[in-house]
Amino acid sequence: MSNFFLNDDSPVINLPDGKTRRKILAHNDNLMIVEVVFDKDGVGALHTHPHTQATYCLSGEFEFTVGGETKVIKPGDTLIMPSGIEHGCRVLTDGGKILDIFTPERKDFL
Amino acid sequence: MSNFFLNDDSPVINLPDGKTRRKILAHNDNLMIVEVVFDKDGVGALHTHPHTQATYCLSGEFEFTVGGETKVIKPGDTLIMPSGIEHGCRVLTDGGKILDIFTPERKDFL
Repeated sequence: MSNFFLNDDSPVINLPDGKTRRKILAHNDNLMIVEVVFDKDGVGALHTHPHTQATYCLSGEFEFTVGGETKVIKPGDTLIMPSGIEHGCRVLTDGGKILDIFTPERKDFL
Repeated sequence: MSNFFLNDDSPVINLPDGKTRRKILAHNDNLMIVEVVFDKDGVGALHTHPHTQATYCLSGEFEFTVGGETKVIKPGDTLIMPSGIEHGCRVLTDGGKILDIFTPERKDFL
């Protein structure tokens, strides 16, 4: 199996809210990269999971809440979500894209 | 300590080759995100490390070699580097930027 995961080869997965969609990119048991696109008013509801997560803002601006701390992030900004910490976001611009990174991989996404 | 790592707050680290520089972004013991900027003709020499790595291309085009497989990646493309696998890259355009992601974190970068 190849170690390359090209963007054009990765199917778009539409999420049930109709305002967000994801692409699963490079992943193995230890690590997973996921692109998430938000339309205007898209939200990632507060939730927790045992995976450690980091997020990188690719475009647009987002308000993120992590463990009760809330900040606005813009392209190039990042945050870390330790295992089990409650986190969520909403897009502030007409749309936006983030990279969500998980260790270990989110087997529930596959 | 905050879970947010904003881009403007992260110092630029110039690497000894004079053609590449990095910014350490979100990280904890389990996970680390690093932005790496390459000037024209910048190279990441073949090397190995025990950390699992994934890379996301932010801008420019790069030729990557991983475990003997070589491919060109462009913005949005990704690859995974399992623990201990030999990998390296060179930028093909006048410059470029990638996101390198490690689990666990690269304590040698801190």
